[in-house]
Amino acid sequence: MMASMLSRRSFIASSAAAALLSQMSRALAHPAADAETATRPNQDGRNAGVIDVSKSPYAKLKTVPVSAVVIQEGFWSQRRKANLESSIPSMQAELVAHGRMDNFLRLEGKSTAPQIGPVFADSDIYKWTEAVGWALQSGNQPALKETTAAMIREVVATQEPSGYLNTYYVGDRKPLRMQYDTQTTGHELYCIGHLLQGAIAYYRSTGDETLLDAGIRFVDDFLLPNYGPGPNQMGIVAGHPEIEMALIELYRTTGNQRYVDLAGYILHGDPRIPLHPQQTVYMFCGVPFTSRTHLEGHAVRCMYACCGATDYYLETGDPAYLQTLNTLWDDLAAHQMYVTGGVGARETGEAFGDPYELPNARAYGESCAAIGNMMWNWRMLAATGDARFTDVVERALYNGINSGMSLDGKTYCYRNPLAFDPNGNSQDRHAPEGRIRNPWYDTTCCPPNLERTFASLPGYFYSTSDDGVYVHLYDNSDLSWRLHDGNGLKIRQETRYPWNGDVKLTIAPATPGEFTVFVRIPGWSTQQSVKVNGASVAGAQPGSYLPIRRRWSAGDAIELSFDMPTQALRANPAVSEDRGRVAFQRGPCVFCMEQLDQPDADTSINLNDYTASLGAPTSARYDPDLLDGVMVLDHAGVIVRPTVDRGLYFPLSESEHTQETDTRLKLIPYYAWANRAPSAMQVWIPYRQA
Amino acid sequence: MMASMLSRRSFIASSAAAALLSQMSRALAHPAADAETATRPNQDGRNAGVIDVSKSPYAKLKTVPVSAVVIQEGFWSQRRKANLESSIPSMQAELVAHGRMDNFLRLEGKSTAPQIGPVFADSDIYKWTEAVGWALQSGNQPALKETTAAMIREVVATQEPSGYLNTYYVGDRKPLRMQYDTQTTGHELYCIGHLLQGAIAYYRSTGDETLLDAGIRFVDDFLLPNYGPGPNQMGIVAGHPEIEMALIELYRTTGNQRYVDLAGYILHGDPRIPLHPQQTVYMFCGVPFTSRTHLEGHAVRCMYACCGATDYYLETGDPAYLQTLNTLWDDLAAHQMYVTGGVGARETGEAFGDPYELPNARAYGESCAAIGNMMWNWRMLAATGDARFTDVVERALYNGINSGMSLDGKTYCYRNPLAFDPNGNSQDRHAPEGRIRNPWYDTTCCPPNLERTFASLPGYFYSTSDDGVYVHLYDNSDLSWRLHDGNGLKIRQETRYPWNGDVKLTIAPATPGEFTVFVRIPGWSTQQSVKVNGASVAGAQPGSYLPIRRRWSAGDAIELSFDMPTQALRANPAVSEDRGRVAFQRGPCVFCMEQLDQPDADTSINLNDYTASLGAPTSARYDPDLLDGVMVLDHAGVIVRPTVDRGLYFPLSESEHTQETDTRLKLIPYYAWANRAPSAMQVWIPYRQA
Repeated sequence: MMASMLSRRSFIASSAAAALLSQMSRALAHPAADAETATRPNQDGRNAGVIDVSKSPYAKLKTVPVSAVVIQEGFWSQRRKANLESSIPSMQAELVAHGRMDNFLRLEGKSTAPQIGPVFADSDIYKWTEAVGWALQSGNQPALKETTAAMIREVVATQEPSGYLNTYYVGDRKPLRMQYDTQTTGHELYCIGHLLQGAIAYYRSTGDETLLDAGIRFVDDFLLPNYGPGPNQMGIVAGHPEIEMALIELYRTTGNQRYVDLAGYILHGDPRIPLHPQQTVYMFCGVPFTSRTHLEGHAVRCMYACCGATDYYLETGDPAYLQTLNTLWDDLAAHQMYVTGGVGARETGEAFGDPYELPNARAYGESCAAIGNMMWNWRMLAATGDARFTDVVERALYNGINSGMSLDGKTYCYRNPLAFDPNGNSQDRHAPEGRIRNPWYDTTCCPPNLERTFASLPGYFYSTSDDGVYVHLYDNSDLSWRLHDGNGLKIRQETRYPWNGDVKLTIAPATPGEFTVFVRIPGWSTQQSVKVNGASVAGAQPGSYLPIRRRWSAGDAIELSFDMPTQALRANPAVSEDRGRVAFQRGPCVFCMEQLDQPDADTSINLNDYTASLGAPTSARYDPDLLDGVMVLDHAGVIVRPTVDRGLYFPLSESEHTQETDTRLKLIPYYAWANRAPSAMQVWIPYRQA
Repeated sequence: MMASMLSRRSFIASSAAAALLSQMSRALAHPAADAETATRPNQDGRNAGVIDVSKSPYAKLKTVPVSAVVIQEGFWSQRRKANLESSIPSMQAELVAHGRMDNFLRLEGKSTAPQIGPVFADSDIYKWTEAVGWALQSGNQPALKETTAAMIREVVATQEPSGYLNTYYVGDRKPLRMQYDTQTTGHELYCIGHLLQGAIAYYRSTGDETLLDAGIRFVDDFLLPNYGPGPNQMGIVAGHPEIEMALIELYRTTGNQRYVDLAGYILHGDPRIPLHPQQTVYMFCGVPFTSRTHLEGHAVRCMYACCGATDYYLETGDPAYLQTLNTLWDDLAAHQMYVTGGVGARETGEAFGDPYELPNARAYGESCAAIGNMMWNWRMLAATGDARFTDVVERALYNGINSGMSLDGKTYCYRNPLAFDPNGNSQDRHAPEGRIRNPWYDTTCCPPNLERTFASLPGYFYSTSDDGVYVHLYDNSDLSWRLHDGNGLKIRQETRYPWNGDVKLTIAPATPGEFTVFVRIPGWSTQQSVKVNGASVAGAQPGSYLPIRRRWSAGDAIELSFDMPTQALRANPAVSEDRGRVAFQRGPCVFCMEQLDQPDADTSINLNDYTASLGAPTSARYDPDLLDGVMVLDHAGVIVRPTVDRGLYFPLSESEHTQETDTRLKLIPYYAWANRAPSAMQVWIPYRQA
């Protein structure tokens, strides 16, 4: 109903809006003097990070390339091995088996298969290509590179002379291209955004410009001349935000300012395009980004829009953007984020719910939304250097993102609930059989999104600033990069993080010199010690970076020690489902109970009958044989079971009639759940004081 | 995707299924000997109840006509006045304004308006007609009757010579008629089911057979010859159950057994029709009803299917149906029903959720589903005479149904949540502006459903059996009917129910005689006294009928006294959101807090900060000036507010830092909520022992 209203409505353009559009139009219509050269890559790809803010005037922190950090044997090496050796190749096979490449081959006359998959099917290929791009920075993979190059050749072969490239809006559907109804629901620019991100990642690893050229041609030849604020142009609305951050990354790669201006125009919304208020909520687009006051609508759309807006701020410094971004972030942290870093609580519309609407079993918590949350906070960190954003990056990464891929790298969560009943009535539209992990979804956005995140992970460990280097994440690893003054810098990390809070950093500048090492003190840390070459350094505060400024020479060592007690967390009482419950967190990891781990798992005890007895200490033990090696928590508990079936509702005045049995609760890290037989799971556990 | 798969799949017919189909086919193909007369009404319409089980062999209880009970000034008279004087006429105007009649007039060349409204738009007119039908049994309304008769004339004028009647599947859409894709989503038989129910109600009030004739022609001329289990017939799947109970009521009205057989065939499902398991869950149709083990899928579909199956049992006595119905009812009572009698917790799919999935703010609780729950329990009561079904009828009627229509009869709830935040992010697809009560929904199923329920209410007060008379509901009223032996019977009820539990029944048989008066002792009653002519009668048990057998003469009086303390109810601990909370119920009414009633309503206190202090008594006071007159509860409470903002998650070990202020909680009946300014509301209130 709604979509078809658009084409019937006439354009609306107030005089104020017209003036603004005119101003935007002038900016966009003014090509850079060296337009031709400006659209060619102007960077050394391999020296660019996940986002390349090296020249961004409002980036306090600069990223380091993925290739500059080698993750050694440890926590993330296992996950990245599964990603590279299992997930990326098996997902390629799934993509091919489900016709994602046939959609391109058909247009070349190389396949007779019918068009298959949703309107955004092309983006699956692009996101997978991006994962390959980042992966190639961590080691040469000739076969993977050649396969990907061949796929890229098939993609670019379908680009039309106009620059248009999309396998869905062809044939009978060609007249629908870029119509307003299509823009709101058809994902054309969403696909191109992912094409650009994939092209840039692949270019930054390989120097291969094939896909990047296609993306530039789409933008330069098809999009910019015909769409935008100009009086003779059709407007743009990003029905699924994504193009904004991709355009700005394209600017960073080519130096063409018009891409930033176009992103700004899209982020502002074009008042000529008639949209229903529900659409601008759902899409998180179509009205000025700076008019937003809270997170709402489709969670992935909202997170990607926030990413694009932060990227826009990093280039322009527009204070209205930063103000809005901070307002939205406060909403995230105060009302909308799961303890796992997941966001988007509501299944209907895959959306943000009301403040404090954070159901557990019914949590939507799409993997892509948690990734969007990490990507946004990563950009906010670049803009500010504030560790509160890194805390969110870490929370999402270790929990609500990490849960998205199975340990073997072959199945994926679309939803990431915080409680689960395998005998439930669940009807997840994306997992019709009720399984929580599946090798394939027809909407397969999450699997390649997880792959690109794990593949690019080395790029999230460090940043640099004019003062020195920031250490964000901890795992066994070697940095080899340089400071802003050009001095080479190596840092080795040795740690058992996230199971243990001791980290040794060995600092080795090429030439001894004075600079600052900003070490992150995680927000969850309650006691911490920092030593340099054995001497204590004061001033460490949880949730901040401790700046250690001195003259550094090769072999200087920083020893960090964060205490890592198990903490029982409560939620704000306004979170209805968490009342009377606690979640256990140890270090960056949130834990959960799976029924099959409990000593009484063979009985018919409902997971809800387990109550944690607080007051007694929790013991933590590393089990190398469980779930590829995890820390296991052991906690005193009571099984409280009614001895009389009192039905669904009963007077409070009736006596309890419960039987209580002492037991032990066994908890595993949340990310590792659902890797064995289907079993009930809960993160938030009823408790009482022992 | 799913729907289009149907047409591509080939038919599947196992030999066992083929044998069963063949048997069904023979039953349906064998017209009654006096087929012609059997399709004419064979009843005195005005003596038939809401359902006419007077000849149903497996109905232990027989209904009484709506016209046999006159509800006098009291609780329900107010609601029925709003229904008759405000809701029914204003809804007629809304229906006309939204083109529901134009859809018919256009086919007659009397309107040039385009087709408007969803595929089930015709049913809106039929359900409204049913409301008028029942309303006319409570008093002559010449203008309303004439208006309705005129609308009926326009409806029947569009019936095609084939018997087909539907304003959506015409013109270009004609080839889609009754295709399997259309049957699963197109609501053709759903519309005809409502046509039949409307026609029967109107016939039972007025004797007018015009619409009834049209319905019979559809079934006899179009449906029976072409659709069914026969080898040359196309199969039937009721994409939205409704036709089943309508066909059986048509049998009760005409005596044509083939309608029962057809209903049985539909309830069994036709294995020739290829359906995805998700479809048979969502539609609650397409597989044998007797194979069902729990409530699932779309709640209204599920409830209507249960109504049809119970009707089928009432006529056939098939024990497999009764067994399944009891199994499903146990699931309802143990896992799936709100304390308000609402059902269908999940917004996605408007569906039943997992067992114990009963969120409050996110409760769907569609008005139609609560009505379906009442209709089903009414039929189960007829089959068994068991008061547990009446308890559900009463719970749904006073709470989750009664909340559906505003006090002024002009706006309606589609959803009936148990908590509400007017500042929330809610995106109800049916109420885009976020208002909970609206005068119109494009899917306007609920308003006329509420109207037909209130209009037919007198028919729910009593039943008869071979032993005597059952008293189900209590309100000031006069029964004038007869016992099975033909002896006339009048009963006058005098009471202040539901605010007070004293009820005086004055019994007046036309001729003194021995029979049983079965008085219902509500399940919520904890102490009760029953006296006949001042002498105590022993044996009353909550949740049962007390049989009082004696020789009754005119003027004999039964005095019932049910204690009506306010009870604080808890929910099963598996209902996550209700942990640590209580709901207050007094008599049949569930209560709630609206923020605007609280003494501190002008402050910024969150409704979640109110905690009930249990242990102290609750006072109840009738306020004639509030909300058309309601009982108001006053209860000791504490406002517990954090003095430090600890964010969304915080360690349990951190001290509370709360400020506590004694206060009084003011509660109103749940049904009356959202009749003033938008305000936060909650049914389940945090509590602690005083």
